[in-house]
Amino acid sequence: MNTLIKNALVIPMKNDGEFFYGDILIKNGKIAEVGEKIDFPADETIDAEGAIALPAFINAHTHLAMILMRNYKDDKENLQEWLSEIFPIEDKLEADDIFKASRAGVAELIKGGCTTFADMYFSAEETEKAVMEAGINASLGLTIFGDGEETERRYLERLPKMKKNAESYGRITFTIAPHAIYTTEKDSYKKSKEYAEKEGFVVHTHLSETKKEVDDSLAENGKSPLTYLKEIGALSRNNMILAHGVHLTDEELEVVKEYGLSVINNPSSNMKLTSGALNVEKLIEMGINVALGTDGASSNNNLNMLEEMHVAALSASLRGGKPIKAYDILKMATINGAKALSLESRLGTIESGKDADIILISTKGLNMNPLNNPFSAIVYSASSEDITTVFSNGVKVLDDRKITYADESEIIKDVNAAWSAVTRR
Amino acid sequence: MNTLIKNALVIPMKNDGEFFYGDILIKNGKIAEVGEKIDFPADETIDAEGAIALPAFINAHTHLAMILMRNYKDDKENLQEWLSEIFPIEDKLEADDIFKASRAGVAELIKGGCTTFADMYFSAEETEKAVMEAGINASLGLTIFGDGEETERRYLERLPKMKKNAESYGRITFTIAPHAIYTTEKDSYKKSKEYAEKEGFVVHTHLSETKKEVDDSLAENGKSPLTYLKEIGALSRNNMILAHGVHLTDEELEVVKEYGLSVINNPSSNMKLTSGALNVEKLIEMGINVALGTDGASSNNNLNMLEEMHVAALSASLRGGKPIKAYDILKMATINGAKALSLESRLGTIESGKDADIILISTKGLNMNPLNNPFSAIVYSASSEDITTVFSNGVKVLDDRKITYADESEIIKDVNAAWSAVTRR
Repeated sequence: MNTLIKNALVIPMKNDGEFFYGDILIKNGKIAEVGEKIDFPADETIDAEGAIALPAFINAHTHLAMILMRNYKDDKENLQEWLSEIFPIEDKLEADDIFKASRAGVAELIKGGCTTFADMYFSAEETEKAVMEAGINASLGLTIFGDGEETERRYLERLPKMKKNAESYGRITFTIAPHAIYTTEKDSYKKSKEYAEKEGFVVHTHLSETKKEVDDSLAENGKSPLTYLKEIGALSRNNMILAHGVHLTDEELEVVKEYGLSVINNPSSNMKLTSGALNVEKLIEMGINVALGTDGASSNNNLNMLEEMHVAALSASLRGGKPIKAYDILKMATINGAKALSLESRLGTIESGKDADIILISTKGLNMNPLNNPFSAIVYSASSEDITTVFSNGVKVLDDRKITYADESEIIKDVNAAWSAVTRR
Repeated sequence: MNTLIKNALVIPMKNDGEFFYGDILIKNGKIAEVGEKIDFPADETIDAEGAIALPAFINAHTHLAMILMRNYKDDKENLQEWLSEIFPIEDKLEADDIFKASRAGVAELIKGGCTTFADMYFSAEETEKAVMEAGINASLGLTIFGDGEETERRYLERLPKMKKNAESYGRITFTIAPHAIYTTEKDSYKKSKEYAEKEGFVVHTHLSETKKEVDDSLAENGKSPLTYLKEIGALSRNNMILAHGVHLTDEELEVVKEYGLSVINNPSSNMKLTSGALNVEKLIEMGINVALGTDGASSNNNLNMLEEMHVAALSASLRGGKPIKAYDILKMATINGAKALSLESRLGTIESGKDADIILISTKGLNMNPLNNPFSAIVYSASSEDITTVFSNGVKVLDDRKITYADESEIIKDVNAAWSAVTRR
């Protein structure tokens, strides 16, 4: 199967500020050629005139199945108060609930133009099934709370099975995901690092999300969270993503840079839970890789990466005191996500040899005219409604706003039934 | 013509936190009845099961025709630098450009669920025509720069004609709109107030948008902007809207309250231009009426009130240090806008006797399930795609995402042609 996309405004995300009008040839799931004019007798030729072709978004930090708790326990004072309401309900979740929620989450991601996500949640085996059904990419992390024994159980018992399940699928990678320093013990963080280095996994953790987390760490450990992880030897060089990082100190940012860690910005969640706003501009200037995530839908309250870019741009400009470049926001949502998850050889740009994970954004709507600047138009003017088509691995997973691999109304019915059952338990 | 909306989740915006499942009867453009079960042989009966019925949004501060400059001159350092690039291109705009841009702007507003807007721009006569074509509401302000002679010219020569044109239409009111203290002279502000009080107009002005505006006013006038307007006798009691107000001091907020003025929050524009974020929670606690605006699409960069609510909620929570209630954000976008524009006898809630300006928001999409909390769902989870139907004055102006009164593609073609001509001048 091959597909030729003609006459698009192509933003390859390869060179800063580059775009051109041209064509993209997809062969067997890969981008075979990108250029101003390609003639090829493809199985399907799509006239993408009036559309922007962009690498599909990468959601670098989420808890997919938390869509169950969308708009639940809203209006809480802060992260801690909210978590204290969320944890008890999470205890009631069963594997099949996670499966149904993951299916809904995967479909919601796709409708927002995203085909790759880094997840951290329970029953990751269920999320794995939902990913394979849709045909998209994921970096799945088995969340670790508690001590090193739990880490061993998860990684020695469960992960090998998950790896085997996804082996022939080839588009799922794994992370080792100690939750946060206030829920996960020291030996667990150390073991996580060992496994990650041995297996080539990315370590995925929450870090310095709130001022309280930092204050508590100073009180308990005599040092701030990243310094604590560094001193216990838990930092995994070039292979670790820090979700949030809002309250990293200047000194810690130097460590982040030195170790080649990535920071995942989650602006909606951080603003909503009053955690603060990441100073994105500063991190970019320092040369730190900043990617973008929606966090879970229960603190967002959606999984829409297009909207997250918009919020990220506004939040970064306000926080940094100067307007961030729209192109830098696009990088956060694409190539920087690929770098963070060690997937840049396969994803994040439109160039030959990479997986054909591409979205088409219509510029025909009222909100996109006059267009003037395609980067700004995507970040500030576009709405998910404008994302008409999403390819993952060369396959259309969204076509004319409809998911192609399953019945959307069934997915919605199932997730509501699951949530309804949870609340009755 | 009458219409019966059945089985909706009705949010009347009359009593805090109220919603119920029920019906709305529209007769001759007015809401005739609202209740849990209405039986009536209407000309059209709409089954709104799975949809939320909400008062249509009120955009209380915009410059509609600035959609011409959407995504134009982005990435500027601040308001002043951006204005210095925008003013020269505005000098090239002709009346017909404003008409075409206003048509596009009106349609974009409607697609975001908005049927009432307070505008401040040049050639308001052209915007008036576009409003009457669509059949929605507007508070139109002839922008005033410069001295009192200009004010007199605008209000003695142009306004009577505009009033006459809209007389039988009945859904357009007028504001007198001195631009800002850094562009409009003292006698002009004083004359504006006189005309406003004589004619029952609302005064619409920009105020304390940036720290620089405040600093300049302190340097030039020895006092901050609102204090300056108060001392020259330019504050119009209960009948004046202050756009932005980000840098109002505590003392000035007491004056705002005392005079019964409204503050219009424009969070996207304020964040994008790094002006700051309004402390909405504080104003609400003080009992000040806070409404919501998109500002112009050139500093937003769209006219989507649904998205503006989302940004407003996030921005207010971050700024205020505690999560703002989603219901308070809904008030800003509906009843508070009606109050600000002195239109609350006619608009802003769903109750019998008011104009039938109502929107239906589908809750059937992936992003809206589980729903859990309808207020949060609208503010945080919904996307404009979910707004299926918009009534203004009882007439469907949006039906299944399509505007009903004109050809959308023609409108888009025309606005692009106009902008293209402007850039060649």
